[in-house]
Amino acid sequence: MLLMEIAKSGKTDPRLQAAADAENIDIDLLRRNIAAGKWVVPWASHDFPRDKPCAVGDGLSCKVNANFGTSPDRGDLDGELEKMRVAVAAGADAVMDLSTGGDLRAIRRQVRAECRVALGSVPMYEAGHLALARGETFRQMTAADMLKAVELHVQDKVDFITVHCGITRRAALWLREHPRLAGVVSRGGSLLARWMLVNERENPLYERFDEVIDMCRATDCVLSLGDALRPGALADAGDRAQVEELYTLGELAERARQKNVQVIIEGPGHVPYHQIVAQMQMEKVACGGAPFYVLGPLVTDLAAGYDHIAGAIGGTLAATAGANFLCYVTPAEHLRLPEARDVHEGVIAARIAAHAADIANGLPGARDRDDAMSRARKAGDWEKMFALALDPETARRSHESALPQKDDKVCTMCGEFCAMKGEECL
Amino acid sequence: MLLMEIAKSGKTDPRLQAAADAENIDIDLLRRNIAAGKWVVPWASHDFPRDKPCAVGDGLSCKVNANFGTSPDRGDLDGELEKMRVAVAAGADAVMDLSTGGDLRAIRRQVRAECRVALGSVPMYEAGHLALARGETFRQMTAADMLKAVELHVQDKVDFITVHCGITRRAALWLREHPRLAGVVSRGGSLLARWMLVNERENPLYERFDEVIDMCRATDCVLSLGDALRPGALADAGDRAQVEELYTLGELAERARQKNVQVIIEGPGHVPYHQIVAQMQMEKVACGGAPFYVLGPLVTDLAAGYDHIAGAIGGTLAATAGANFLCYVTPAEHLRLPEARDVHEGVIAARIAAHAADIANGLPGARDRDDAMSRARKAGDWEKMFALALDPETARRSHESALPQKDDKVCTMCGEFCAMKGEECL
Repeated sequence: MLLMEIAKSGKTDPRLQAAADAENIDIDLLRRNIAAGKWVVPWASHDFPRDKPCAVGDGLSCKVNANFGTSPDRGDLDGELEKMRVAVAAGADAVMDLSTGGDLRAIRRQVRAECRVALGSVPMYEAGHLALARGETFRQMTAADMLKAVELHVQDKVDFITVHCGITRRAALWLREHPRLAGVVSRGGSLLARWMLVNERENPLYERFDEVIDMCRATDCVLSLGDALRPGALADAGDRAQVEELYTLGELAERARQKNVQVIIEGPGHVPYHQIVAQMQMEKVACGGAPFYVLGPLVTDLAAGYDHIAGAIGGTLAATAGANFLCYVTPAEHLRLPEARDVHEGVIAARIAAHAADIANGLPGARDRDDAMSRARKAGDWEKMFALALDPETARRSHESALPQKDDKVCTMCGEFCAMKGEECL
Repeated sequence: MLLMEIAKSGKTDPRLQAAADAENIDIDLLRRNIAAGKWVVPWASHDFPRDKPCAVGDGLSCKVNANFGTSPDRGDLDGELEKMRVAVAAGADAVMDLSTGGDLRAIRRQVRAECRVALGSVPMYEAGHLALARGETFRQMTAADMLKAVELHVQDKVDFITVHCGITRRAALWLREHPRLAGVVSRGGSLLARWMLVNERENPLYERFDEVIDMCRATDCVLSLGDALRPGALADAGDRAQVEELYTLGELAERARQKNVQVIIEGPGHVPYHQIVAQMQMEKVACGGAPFYVLGPLVTDLAAGYDHIAGAIGGTLAATAGANFLCYVTPAEHLRLPEARDVHEGVIAARIAAHAADIANGLPGARDRDDAMSRARKAGDWEKMFALALDPETARRSHESALPQKDDKVCTMCGEFCAMKGEECL
C-alpha cells in the first residue's frame, strides 16, 4: 500500500508513526493532511533505515534540504559521500544527489545505501547521459530516455524525484519571444526547453505524465514537480512563463494525488524580497496547498560568495508565507562546485532561516531552545551555550580562540563590562 | 550654523550638497526632511574629509554601520584601526568606536584623524573610566562624570554619539520586579540601570537632557538616543520596559529637534521575526518618524558563530518596515571580540540585507546593479561578475580556486550542463 493510501484508509504504518512522533503531533492529523495532499512524508516503501523522518507541509517545522553531487567537471564518489555526511551532521532533514558527472547510477546506489535521511534525485541529467552513452548529443535524447531515467531513479528507491513535467513547448516558445535576463537557469529545465524547440516536440514528461505517476507508484516515490522556469535573476521573477508553469504544476499535482502519489512543488530562485510573500501564496492557491520547496529564494543577484546569506534572508520570509522545505544555497553558488565546508555553511544558514520561521509561525515549542540559550548566556555557562548552539563546534572554536584573561564567565567582547554578568534582576 | 538650522533656513552647505548628490536627490527634498527630523546627516560642522556622506532616513538607501573598539580584555589601537579600515573597505557607511579598554581618548582621536566616513561613539564607557581613574568603581560614577564623558566625545568631533537618556529609574525598578531572561544587555544601559538602583537616583542623562542637547549643539553632533533596554533574548522582546523607553526616547527626540539637534533612535536587538514589523512601525509613531538604527535584529538566540546571518535576516525585514541604519553583527557576536575578518563578514552580511531592502522598498535604481550582474552571468563574463559582486575578492577567490577544465565561461558546479551558456533566448 502507498503511504497516501494508508493515510486515506486510516491505517497505520511505522513511517507515519515515526513522523508523527518526530513532529510531536497526533497521527490522525498527519493522516488527514497527507490524504489531503497538504503534507508529505518522503520515505519510499522499503526498509532503508532512517535517522529522522521528514514530514513536510504547512504547520509542521520547516525542513532543510542539502544538495550535493558530481559535475561533468569535478567531483568523485568519495568526495560527494563526504558532503552528504557533512550535510546530515549539520542537521539537514533531506539531501539530494544531483550528480551529473561520472557513473550516475553507481553514485546514486552508493548514496542510497548510506543515506539515513530523505533522499532525492533528478532523473533528467541521466536522460542526457543515456543519449551521450550512444554517442549522441543532449538534443538527440528521446522521450524514452526521459522516462527510462525516471524509472532508473525510482528503481534505486530514492524517496523523492524532481521531474520537470510542467514546462511546456508553449512556454519555451513564449520565452523565445520574450527573452529573460538570465533565461532558463534550471539545468533540467534548460535541457528540456532547448530539446522542445530544436525537435519541435512537446515535453514528454508533460505529455506522458500518467506514466511518470505510475513509476512513482511502483516504489512510493514522492513526486517533486520541478520548476524548470524558476527565475535566475531578480528581473525575471514572476513573469508569465514562471507563473504559467506553476499553475500547470498545480494541475499535474492534482492528477498525481488522485492516484495516491504524494507531491511536492518546487519554487524559486531569485526573487525580490517584496515579491516573496505573493509568490508563496500563489503556490498555495495554484497547487491546492501542496508543500512548497524553494531554492533560496535569493533576494539579490550580487551576493556571490555569500549566497547562503541571501538565501537565508529570502528563505525566512518564504517560510513564514507558505514555503515548507528550504533547499539550502551554499557560499559557492554561482562560482564553483561546493566543497564540504560550503555544504556545512549552507546547511547552517538554511537552518537559521527555518528555525526563525518556525518561531514566527508559532510552532509549539519552537522558541524553547532559544530561551534555554538565553538562560545559559545570563548564567555564563559556556558548555551549555555550545550545546544549544545550532553549530556547537563553530561556537566553541570561536570562543576558545580568544579566552578572557580573568573571568571565565565573560568573553573578550566586553570583558568586565559584560552586561550579562550583573545582578540577576537586570 | 547647525546643519538642521541650515536645512530649516533653506540655505545650502557643502555637506548637504554632497549628501544630496550621493543619494541622487534634490537638495530641497533633503533640507525639508532634515528640517522635519525624518532624515539626518551625521557630519559634524568641521573639516574632516569624507569619502562618502551618510544621509539616513525613510526613502533613502539603507545604511550600514560597523562597530569596532578595544575591550578591557583585548584589543589595541593598531588592531582596531585595522578593523576600521577593513569595515570601510567592505562598504560600511559609518563606523563606531566602542572602545572600552586602554586610553579611550587617545584611541578615539587617532580614529577620528583617520576616519573618512561618519564616526560614532558611546560616552558612557568613558564615564565609567573616569571613576576607575580615581580608584573608584563604576557605581561611584557621578552625574558629572556622565556629562563630562559626553563633552569629551563631542569635543573630539565624532559625528554621532550614543547616549542612554531614555532609561529611567522607574524602568529599572520595574525590571527588578519583572526579571527578564537576559536582563539588560546594553553595556551602557546596564551600567546606568545598576547605578540608579544602587544610588537610588534618577538617570542624570535623562534629568539633565538639556545639557546633553547643548553639548551636541557645540559641534553639531548627531544625538543617537540609545536603547539601554533593548531585548537581548527573543523572550524579552517588546516588554513594557523596552516600549516605555522607546516612547521616552520619542519625547526626548522632539526636545532635541526643537533645539536643532539631529536625532537618530537606536533599536533592538533580539526580536522574533514576526514582531519586527510592529517594532519598526512603533518607532516611527513614537519618535515622529526619526531615523531608526537597529542592531540586527537577531531572529534567533541560537546562531552563535553565525549571528551575522541571523542579523541579516532580521535586518532585511526591519529595513523594509522602518529601519534606516543597520548596525552590523559579526560572526563573533556572543563569543569574543571580533577580529578583522569578522568585521569584513559582518559588513558584507549587513550590506546584503540593506541592498535587498532597498530593492524591496522601490528605491530608484536599486536593482540596476543586480540586472547588470545577471547579464554578465548570462554572458559568462567573470571579470564583470567579480566587479559587480558585493565582495569582488571573495567571489574571485572562490571561483578561481576551482577553475573548469574546458570552457572558461562556466564553473565547476555544472560544467557543460551550465544552463546559462545556451542560446541567448533561453
